[in-house]
Amino acid sequence: MQIAIPLYDRFTALDAVGPYEVLARLPGAEVVWVAHEPGLVANDNGMLSMQATARFEDVPAPDVVVVPGGLGSRALLEDERLLGWLRSVHATSTWTTSVCTGSLLLAAAGILDGVPATTHWLAMDLLGQLGAVPTDERVVHQGKIVTAAGVSSGIDMGLWLAGQIAGDETACALQLTIEYDPQPPYDSGCVAKADPAMVARLRELSAASAAR
Amino acid sequence: MQIAIPLYDRFTALDAVGPYEVLARLPGAEVVWVAHEPGLVANDNGMLSMQATARFEDVPAPDVVVVPGGLGSRALLEDERLLGWLRSVHATSTWTTSVCTGSLLLAAAGILDGVPATTHWLAMDLLGQLGAVPTDERVVHQGKIVTAAGVSSGIDMGLWLAGQIAGDETACALQLTIEYDPQPPYDSGCVAKADPAMVARLRELSAASAAR
Repeated sequence: MQIAIPLYDRFTALDAVGPYEVLARLPGAEVVWVAHEPGLVANDNGMLSMQATARFEDVPAPDVVVVPGGLGSRALLEDERLLGWLRSVHATSTWTTSVCTGSLLLAAAGILDGVPATTHWLAMDLLGQLGAVPTDERVVHQGKIVTAAGVSSGIDMGLWLAGQIAGDETACALQLTIEYDPQPPYDSGCVAKADPAMVARLRELSAASAAR
Repeated sequence: MQIAIPLYDRFTALDAVGPYEVLARLPGAEVVWVAHEPGLVANDNGMLSMQATARFEDVPAPDVVVVPGGLGSRALLEDERLLGWLRSVHATSTWTTSVCTGSLLLAAAGILDGVPATTHWLAMDLLGQLGAVPTDERVVHQGKIVTAAGVSSGIDMGLWLAGQIAGDETACALQLTIEYDPQPPYDSGCVAKADPAMVARLRELSAASAAR
């Protein structure tokens, strides 16, 4: 089972590594990190680099695609090389998935037209503008398309996918292996639970950043 | 605030990237990935590589140290170059922390002698043999030493630390930014909740692997 994870300048590391840490442990899994060119790819704050080992074109028919999000995703909404690759691999994939603003890239490729999907809470409007049906759930699946909410939600998506691919027992064993028994010290992890003033402030910061 | 995260052959990626994704977003944070030598470092299954940008000796006084775990940690329990660096940076750190079997390295360095600490559930006995007081909590802190349980627990630790360093409001904003509102599709994330037969099987597999 080949799993392709695209990397691009200013991706968000946990978007990719969360589901990776689950899916790479599935029996027979082979993960390939693909990019415009092989080599180091820097994340959104430039303080972390991961190695891409193949060009998009080198991996024409992965079984699973996991598109991470990141600040850099918006710069690629018209990148025909990436979008064409996404369209092409989606035609034969078993699962086409995204975390966070990775879904903006699936949508820009036309894969989410009229499809219920999610993204980072700050990008929900844009996801709708790109043709998807924004859906306020942490992991949204329709057929073989699975999208997850912001950053850390990729772990939940990875476990759900593991169950679909290898069964509940294997998924439970993976959950125990990565000791995923979350105990956040705060309860501010989604818009509905966070302080509305904080939500408003982050929306303003995000809008100001996008306008620059 | 300088945050040093050591990388070593066969580290576990999520151990490092989970807390990284929180702590790197703190105001003024600078993350340095340190290793025996700068360059690519491969993870436990060899399917992911991250870039170390400095030698241990290049980073003599980080404010925060986060030691990830991984299959490779046991090969370093007598690695005086790493252990000596850990001892040295612990002398001046504000926070000395670990995720998963990263605590075995802190213990091997003598930093956890008689200190309540945790690790991956499969390594609790070894943690005790190395001088720590194994403690069955997800995040364990005593003074400036903070250890977290297996793999995914580093996100919880990162948020706890963020609260200590920058206050509850900033920590809550970070939780919302990474949309950490966990909804695991199974409830098998720790020994107490998992099927006992599965726990026993994973213990046997781990023992067989360690005996090889």
